[in-house]
Amino acid sequence: MMTSIDGSGGITGAFTRLLAGLGTAAIDEEAATVARQCLLDWIGVSLAGRHEPLVDILVETAREEGGDGHLPLPGRPETLPLTQAVTVIGAMSHALDYDDVHLAMQGHPSVAVIPAAWALALAEGRDGAALIRSIVGGFEIACRTGLLMGPSHYARGWHATGTVGTFGAMAASALLLGLDEDRMAHGFGIAGTQAAGLKAVFGTMSKPLHAGRAAANGLTAARLAARGFTSHTDILGAAQGFGDTQSDGLDPAAALAPAPGFMIRDTLFKYHAACYLTHSAIEAVHSLGRIDPEAVRRVTVRVDPGHLRVCNIPAPATGLEMKFSLRMTAALALAGEDTAREALFADATAARPDLVRLRDAVTVEPRAAPSSTLSEIEVELADGATRRAAFDVGVPAADLDRQWQRLSAKFLGLARPVLGEARSREVLSRVRELDARTDLGTLAGLLAAA
Amino acid sequence: MMTSIDGSGGITGAFTRLLAGLGTAAIDEEAATVARQCLLDWIGVSLAGRHEPLVDILVETAREEGGDGHLPLPGRPETLPLTQAVTVIGAMSHALDYDDVHLAMQGHPSVAVIPAAWALALAEGRDGAALIRSIVGGFEIACRTGLLMGPSHYARGWHATGTVGTFGAMAASALLLGLDEDRMAHGFGIAGTQAAGLKAVFGTMSKPLHAGRAAANGLTAARLAARGFTSHTDILGAAQGFGDTQSDGLDPAAALAPAPGFMIRDTLFKYHAACYLTHSAIEAVHSLGRIDPEAVRRVTVRVDPGHLRVCNIPAPATGLEMKFSLRMTAALALAGEDTAREALFADATAARPDLVRLRDAVTVEPRAAPSSTLSEIEVELADGATRRAAFDVGVPAADLDRQWQRLSAKFLGLARPVLGEARSREVLSRVRELDARTDLGTLAGLLAAA
Repeated sequence: MMTSIDGSGGITGAFTRLLAGLGTAAIDEEAATVARQCLLDWIGVSLAGRHEPLVDILVETAREEGGDGHLPLPGRPETLPLTQAVTVIGAMSHALDYDDVHLAMQGHPSVAVIPAAWALALAEGRDGAALIRSIVGGFEIACRTGLLMGPSHYARGWHATGTVGTFGAMAASALLLGLDEDRMAHGFGIAGTQAAGLKAVFGTMSKPLHAGRAAANGLTAARLAARGFTSHTDILGAAQGFGDTQSDGLDPAAALAPAPGFMIRDTLFKYHAACYLTHSAIEAVHSLGRIDPEAVRRVTVRVDPGHLRVCNIPAPATGLEMKFSLRMTAALALAGEDTAREALFADATAARPDLVRLRDAVTVEPRAAPSSTLSEIEVELADGATRRAAFDVGVPAADLDRQWQRLSAKFLGLARPVLGEARSREVLSRVRELDARTDLGTLAGLLAAA
Repeated sequence: MMTSIDGSGGITGAFTRLLAGLGTAAIDEEAATVARQCLLDWIGVSLAGRHEPLVDILVETAREEGGDGHLPLPGRPETLPLTQAVTVIGAMSHALDYDDVHLAMQGHPSVAVIPAAWALALAEGRDGAALIRSIVGGFEIACRTGLLMGPSHYARGWHATGTVGTFGAMAASALLLGLDEDRMAHGFGIAGTQAAGLKAVFGTMSKPLHAGRAAANGLTAARLAARGFTSHTDILGAAQGFGDTQSDGLDPAAALAPAPGFMIRDTLFKYHAACYLTHSAIEAVHSLGRIDPEAVRRVTVRVDPGHLRVCNIPAPATGLEMKFSLRMTAALALAGEDTAREALFADATAARPDLVRLRDAVTVEPRAAPSSTLSEIEVELADGATRRAAFDVGVPAADLDRQWQRLSAKFLGLARPVLGEARSREVLSRVRELDARTDLGTLAGLLAAA
């Protein structure tokens, strides 16, 4: 699958050959399974985010234009022209920040890649197997672009979901359109010169917009390239190109390193409707087994020092603040609350006396460890006994069957209020069996607003 | 008009107060005149670029989406939904690289600002006076954003027309929509986090696309902000914001310096269908008066050393290469050719023996001077006499009446082949008299394809 950089076309040339190879490469069963899991999870979070205020604004603004397109929006009655639909769908799926993550990409792959792949596959009447292949390819390019850019890209202020995600969306679209290598190279250029998204806007409606714009710009880049639109054919490696302007040093060796399988295999999923950096502590509590909340006397949570700047609100007053509070999320887990439930994160919950007592018993401490995503928890009980555990949500699941079960439960929790029990289960089973016989139009029909 | 930074809302807060003030400020007659000149010139270059291959691709791709909007495209029969139309119109107007320039912005203001202002004013049924005000405001913000970012922004690889231009398009749109200060601040944020465009793609179809995307993204930012969409309210000054990620050092003093009038007054126009850096030498030749081309023995052109990397192709073989050849453009001027004519720059012209002889007589030398846009020419004639002249196209025209005459001639040359003589003259006279009585729909109707 991998190709080394041989000088022709520079880094983008190597990426182009990699992407072209994915058009015919065998997709192993593990990668295909995870792609279906990404699709299922993306449908669930999209449905749950369908009526966030930012989505309503995007839909109203698009409809005001008089464009009368026919792409359906999951969970909503409206249809929109392709590019507008992809923008809205991308933003919708990232609105709750409950979507998947990939450490190589340093961002959220599904919300950038899948809206483009899904909409284009629908518009072109493609089948489930074509969609799976395009998702695997989109993830591969997004992740390897993230590796190429290195940690400085995100550190300097770019939101990789918006920037790097654009390349992933272009790649998925290029595979669906069957671009040749020459047009793919131009597609990379058209994508790279439109890629945008700044971390300064985190905490506002503009963050989910990045996912929508990445998806739409990547899709547009591939569609323009298909018609012969031109760009620089080494946007990743060129002087004054994407890498040069937005990275302190490219890492082609990491970007093109051979791998035993596809990057999509290492996608990480969120099972708690809170900041991803609280997840290890929540899982560590779960791994302690059953504890009587009344018996908890003192709790110590040890996390990477960097987390303290992100999710250490000590006494959250609102549902949103709860999501960024290690003390409160640990308290929720100790109290046995279902942290997968978006509705749990509400102002009223933040004020509940039993939770406030538990929260106040928690001390958060910085800890140096080989993995920044590993968290430790230590619980001292009323009888003097101490229970300890550690968990690292940065490690991809080994057991894909168990991952299906967990994702299915999360999906049903998110989809049921929108589609009802029967339709949610039908969507679940169709996605699980997604293959060359799957008609995506039928699946899209199941997602339409009731 | 100017406000100093007072700490509330940082740099973007100061820009917001400036922009809000422009909603009611008196627009002086010089600024209004130049705004009408920018509009006229923009219509001319848009008409001339209407069927460039890149425009055809953008139109076909947009129409494939099934969106059935009603915004007309200058010189073409199609209509498109608002955002798509603005993207196409922006790219169309920058396709020939024959549009205006502003040194403060370090880019092309009209092609980023006017497509948004024009389309929104049309869609909202606004009059000529509202359009003029929005153009003046869009230029003011684009130019002052350019001054804020400083020379490092362009030097590091960003195409200011695409990036900085997005703020100008947002500003013009915000004035037309009548946003209050709070929504304007969010509009700046939504614009800044979408702003993009890399210099690496110069020489490809992606360069004009930058103008279209800047116009469309700026317009979208204002329309979303109008409905309450949120972003960071100091995108220009924030850590990990637009300035922080894309400038080596912001210059708020320059950006907010009081000025005697509006920035639009200093817009520079192109009168030759070649690289702007060849214009001073061409004008210097014209200022020599009549010369018999047969009598020319030796020519020396002295330019800023930086120009040698941009437009010093010594023996151009194609029409495009001619545009980037100081030797050939000086030869064209000496031969009395009309360098305003786009069609002059053709492969056949490049091979004409009389021009090749003149071209080969030209030596280009670097020259240090206070103004980088000043060029000198020295012509030695067969009789031993030497004629010398210098010209600086970086100095805005002092005489606006003469500027109208020159722009009118350029406009008629570009518009006549599309609209015919009578209709071209009617457009010219309507733009010259653009005011509160001007119905933009009627003007748009005159631009429709015959």
